[in-house]
Amino acid sequence: MVRRLYELAGTDPARRFSPYCWRARMALAHKGLEADCAVWRFTEGEAIAFSGQDKVPVLVDGDSAVADSWAIARYLEERYPDRPALFPAGVAAARFVTAWADGVLNAALVRLIVSDIPPLLDEPAQAYFIRSREARFGQPLAEVTAGREARLPEFRQKLGPMRAVVSEQPFLGGDAPDYRDHAVFGGFQWARVVSPLDLLAADDPVFLWRERMLDLYGGLARATPALGD
Amino acid sequence: MVRRLYELAGTDPARRFSPYCWRARMALAHKGLEADCAVWRFTEGEAIAFSGQDKVPVLVDGDSAVADSWAIARYLEERYPDRPALFPAGVAAARFVTAWADGVLNAALVRLIVSDIPPLLDEPAQAYFIRSREARFGQPLAEVTAGREARLPEFRQKLGPMRAVVSEQPFLGGDAPDYRDHAVFGGFQWARVVSPLDLLAADDPVFLWRERMLDLYGGLARATPALGD
Repeated sequence: MVRRLYELAGTDPARRFSPYCWRARMALAHKGLEADCAVWRFTEGEAIAFSGQDKVPVLVDGDSAVADSWAIARYLEERYPDRPALFPAGVAAARFVTAWADGVLNAALVRLIVSDIPPLLDEPAQAYFIRSREARFGQPLAEVTAGREARLPEFRQKLGPMRAVVSEQPFLGGDAPDYRDHAVFGGFQWARVVSPLDLLAADDPVFLWRERMLDLYGGLARATPALGD
Repeated sequence: MVRRLYELAGTDPARRFSPYCWRARMALAHKGLEADCAVWRFTEGEAIAFSGQDKVPVLVDGDSAVADSWAIARYLEERYPDRPALFPAGVAAARFVTAWADGVLNAALVRLIVSDIPPLLDEPAQAYFIRSREARFGQPLAEVTAGREARLPEFRQKLGPMRAVVSEQPFLGGDAPDYRDHAVFGGFQWARVVSPLDLLAADDPVFLWRERMLDLYGGLARATPALGD
């Protein structure tokens, strides 16, 4: 049976950097499922047109094709119920954390790292990325991230909800990770792959949690080429 | 056995407005526990000195005295395990939501409503409140809340994580509320009691969730005198 995850990459096919693709990759590893992790680039819409939309991650699992990281996680939990649970505390707990990661964490991260991304892309993808992101932010990407070191304290302050939990236990899921951890980790791994910016102080419980996440599944995420620590 | 909850009130003893006291009140009702809800005002530190600190809520439950809303919830869950669970999805899920309510929701609310509070307080409490809050914000309270109607879209946008959940199910806890709901509701009830500001659009899933919260336990929270809707 074919199992393939289409993942966003830069010019270097090893540089997988989408926060949402990382959620899917970690969810597959959590379930102990092997997958062919296929390279996809911003300008290759036709390669995933079969999935009915134009963004990755897309998972092909035998006869099923599932797009969107949340839908992929829900699919994996339903399709493989006998493997380690992604939602042991209920779907709603993970939905809250995932929405927080989307709207707070990733929204803050993009304003710290977006200008680091174009140099990692090949020319057509670079042109698309710059045009679409400058339209979104209404300013050049270098201006979006200007003064970012000075904004790190504000960024770190926003991590309060997750810090409150991982100060008291190893993972958001408890002694072991669950989808809440993967949803949040996607953003940190995105930043780590594309940017040299030191997001976290080494004595931050969130830093120590990230180290534990990087160690999971034989160091899966740590093995990816990265610019950050 | 004596069971007493010390709650912050304004000049009108019926006007209980602390977001953290509301968490404790709702947690008691969730457990089906009766309590004498005693009035406490900002300048009455000596009345709760027995608890070892100077803030409400303070719960006296027989021989136990517990301060701090989170500690009270944990105490109630441990002391009354046979009554409806406050943490059915685990403590960590509630810890995350509670920390979000503290650092995002309540931090945003105070900048919308703080200037509504002094007129509700008697003179010594009013003087204390204005002095301490102006020191915290570094400006007069009327300036803190200036232009608040224009800031409502930004406030509503911050509710994304909870909106994602209550769009799909009645409560953060699922079909029934749990401590995640009470932790968040405290902030909304605080605002409702002290401020005429319409925080939520009537078609917002968060508005509909708040209506369900106001209906709980025989309309416990709805019965409190309020300035908001």
